[in-house]
Amino acid sequence: MFGSEPAAVRVGVLGCGTVGGALVTLLQREAPAIAERTGVRLEVARVAVRDPARARPVDLPPGALTGDAGSVVTDPGVDVVVELMGGVEPARTLVLDALKAAKPVVTANKQLLALCGAELFEAASAAGVDLLYEAAVAGAIPLIRPLRESLAGERIARVMGIVNGTTNYVLTRMTDEGASYADALAEAQALGYAEADPTADVEGYDAAAKAAILATIAFGVQVVADDVHREGITAVTPADIAFAGRLGYVVKLLAVSEAVGTEVAVRVHPAMVPASHPLAAVRDAFNAVFVEGEAVGELMFYGRGAGGMPTASAVLGDLIDAAHNLQVGGRGRTAPMNRAVVRPMADLSSQYYLNINVVDRPGVLAAVAAVFGTHGVSIRSMEQEGLGDEARLVFITHKATERDVQATLADLRHLDAVERVGGLLRVIGPE
Amino acid sequence: MFGSEPAAVRVGVLGCGTVGGALVTLLQREAPAIAERTGVRLEVARVAVRDPARARPVDLPPGALTGDAGSVVTDPGVDVVVELMGGVEPARTLVLDALKAAKPVVTANKQLLALCGAELFEAASAAGVDLLYEAAVAGAIPLIRPLRESLAGERIARVMGIVNGTTNYVLTRMTDEGASYADALAEAQALGYAEADPTADVEGYDAAAKAAILATIAFGVQVVADDVHREGITAVTPADIAFAGRLGYVVKLLAVSEAVGTEVAVRVHPAMVPASHPLAAVRDAFNAVFVEGEAVGELMFYGRGAGGMPTASAVLGDLIDAAHNLQVGGRGRTAPMNRAVVRPMADLSSQYYLNINVVDRPGVLAAVAAVFGTHGVSIRSMEQEGLGDEARLVFITHKATERDVQATLADLRHLDAVERVGGLLRVIGPE
Repeated sequence: MFGSEPAAVRVGVLGCGTVGGALVTLLQREAPAIAERTGVRLEVARVAVRDPARARPVDLPPGALTGDAGSVVTDPGVDVVVELMGGVEPARTLVLDALKAAKPVVTANKQLLALCGAELFEAASAAGVDLLYEAAVAGAIPLIRPLRESLAGERIARVMGIVNGTTNYVLTRMTDEGASYADALAEAQALGYAEADPTADVEGYDAAAKAAILATIAFGVQVVADDVHREGITAVTPADIAFAGRLGYVVKLLAVSEAVGTEVAVRVHPAMVPASHPLAAVRDAFNAVFVEGEAVGELMFYGRGAGGMPTASAVLGDLIDAAHNLQVGGRGRTAPMNRAVVRPMADLSSQYYLNINVVDRPGVLAAVAAVFGTHGVSIRSMEQEGLGDEARLVFITHKATERDVQATLADLRHLDAVERVGGLLRVIGPE
Repeated sequence: MFGSEPAAVRVGVLGCGTVGGALVTLLQREAPAIAERTGVRLEVARVAVRDPARARPVDLPPGALTGDAGSVVTDPGVDVVVELMGGVEPARTLVLDALKAAKPVVTANKQLLALCGAELFEAASAAGVDLLYEAAVAGAIPLIRPLRESLAGERIARVMGIVNGTTNYVLTRMTDEGASYADALAEAQALGYAEADPTADVEGYDAAAKAAILATIAFGVQVVADDVHREGITAVTPADIAFAGRLGYVVKLLAVSEAVGTEVAVRVHPAMVPASHPLAAVRDAFNAVFVEGEAVGELMFYGRGAGGMPTASAVLGDLIDAAHNLQVGGRGRTAPMNRAVVRPMADLSSQYYLNINVVDRPGVLAAVAAVFGTHGVSIRSMEQEGLGDEARLVFITHKATERDVQATLADLRHLDAVERVGGLLRVIGPE
């Protein structure tokens, strides 16, 4: 179909777990169709695995499998390197070596990018080759390319993502069935949506790494995982979710990146999202990223955030891109980037949902309200619910700074009548 | 920021209406930021308008405005042409002339692409320049680039889009308020969401042009507007919508493109979408495109389908791409395409919702059911509702072919007891 048939682009794959195995299967099955549609011929040349002796469901030419990942990178028979090992080392060294050898790299490693992104992009830029990573954020969802290219002329105001499938699954179960956090997590673990040690997901570490990558692309400045304010979902209760529902909201773990003047603010925390908001309809283990731009208005990208085949599909899209650029001698657009100036969480404003248990006696509400007043936090609505000797006070505030709200909570904890300062959720929506 | 500053890419704009005006404003305002972020310097060189004497809200250098669109295309001071005139001629001739002069073209003209796409893409391919059209389908939503590039290795099974904002607004009003079609349309017209002559929108012509473009990209074969089976929303009643709601569905006008073996099927019609489906949450004038791929699973792209600034934002993304390719000497990937083999509507299968008014007397249901049986159309559920002397029968069928359902309806119309064969809606969802 194409006049002069170009040579095949030979792919070296580092790591052959769920995603790597799916990628090799997909590549072998779809190579002829891809060649016909795009003119790019792809060929799996080498695959580095931990144990080459172990039987695998993929069919590879003899000698393709190796336990030595470094030999794949340096192999003159490998044109493009796909890194699917995860973790920082040896992935970082291998990716740097590949880039230095002028081999484009495709990676799905969010941790590596969130921690060492600047170093890797500099190496790619210096070598004049692609470093692509569509699969690192929101798995299968084409996101990086639209943000980086389609919206290259857009002034992005805010990006809000549901980027962790495990926590979204847990919150969906808690919302639909009134399940406790512990029960919903156990169900997610039984179904394989959550790991035995769920810390990285439920404490928001995974989402924070993705938030850093999203903010970097959206705002064109380097943001790293440490810049991200991070709260997980372990403190969210069925009562919080029920209150949110009654008020017309759904509770979601959001990764929010905002432009604040010339600074950026990046945070991961559970939030109340209006039920009519497109993010509220993102259920179970699905991911979605909602983008607000000055000219473009509101956009949302929705799809699977994990899974072997969906993630492999995103890797394959990058691989075709890198191979195409290798053949035509071009490459993707990457501009050098400055380090982000990060606005501290304490300086950000939001509406807040607060859930406070107090002793049920006269005068308590006045005392609590006085504390809010002292810190200039204005109350939009309050609901009181009797619980035997106690009462639960649920507040929604007007817009207030994190600093003032935290100061209010610190003072409330010292009030005699306050038994427990419970749920704190930021409220997303019209102000 | 970039070592050797490249020359500015000079943009010629054909048409300066809502989108053209927004583009010029956006380009002038964002050019420095775009240059810093992407290394691409853009400059508005010439703008062709119908009446150059008329005052405009955009500020242009003297001599930039002209009434002669042809002179913009041939001007050696124009490197890239943006066509925002709409309609087939003279847009077609101007675009062809620009491509022949090796100038990349960006267009938002869905009608032109749906009718003359093959000719234009051949001209672009022959000249070795870009022809980009992100804004032609679903306005601001980055869709073409993700479909064409991120999913280049994906076997797409089905694409379902809400691609017409006017009809989605009308259906949303009918759903939320129980409004009649006429009242909802009048409201849409009053708000500027529908034109005085709404035919192109409500009869599905606009959606059909976009469906042809989407099918072409998704399946890599040429599909034109005439290949698209087209039904509008004028026959949808509040009763249909209420029944759908009771059964857990929302009524939407869908543009559906499917791979059926080696053929494609492309159709626009109102359909019942499960309330839990992400497309059901797409409200008002918003657009969304839901993609089902073999490896990638389910994806959805959501955003504004029209409006000056949102559409201009999509045009600008293409413009940066075309300018970048012009500077580095590359260009987007376009493979030559075969004409699609289109599966006729009669051969497609679906579940159906049918709403039939009958005389309310014994034996009628049996007679009606017998007609379904004759044509092998199996009934999944039936509801009967008394209406004085009449009764309304509402059927949901099991999966049946369009041919068999249409034959059933034709026979039903000849039954004495049948007063009216009303709503026919395809039901999307688990089979």
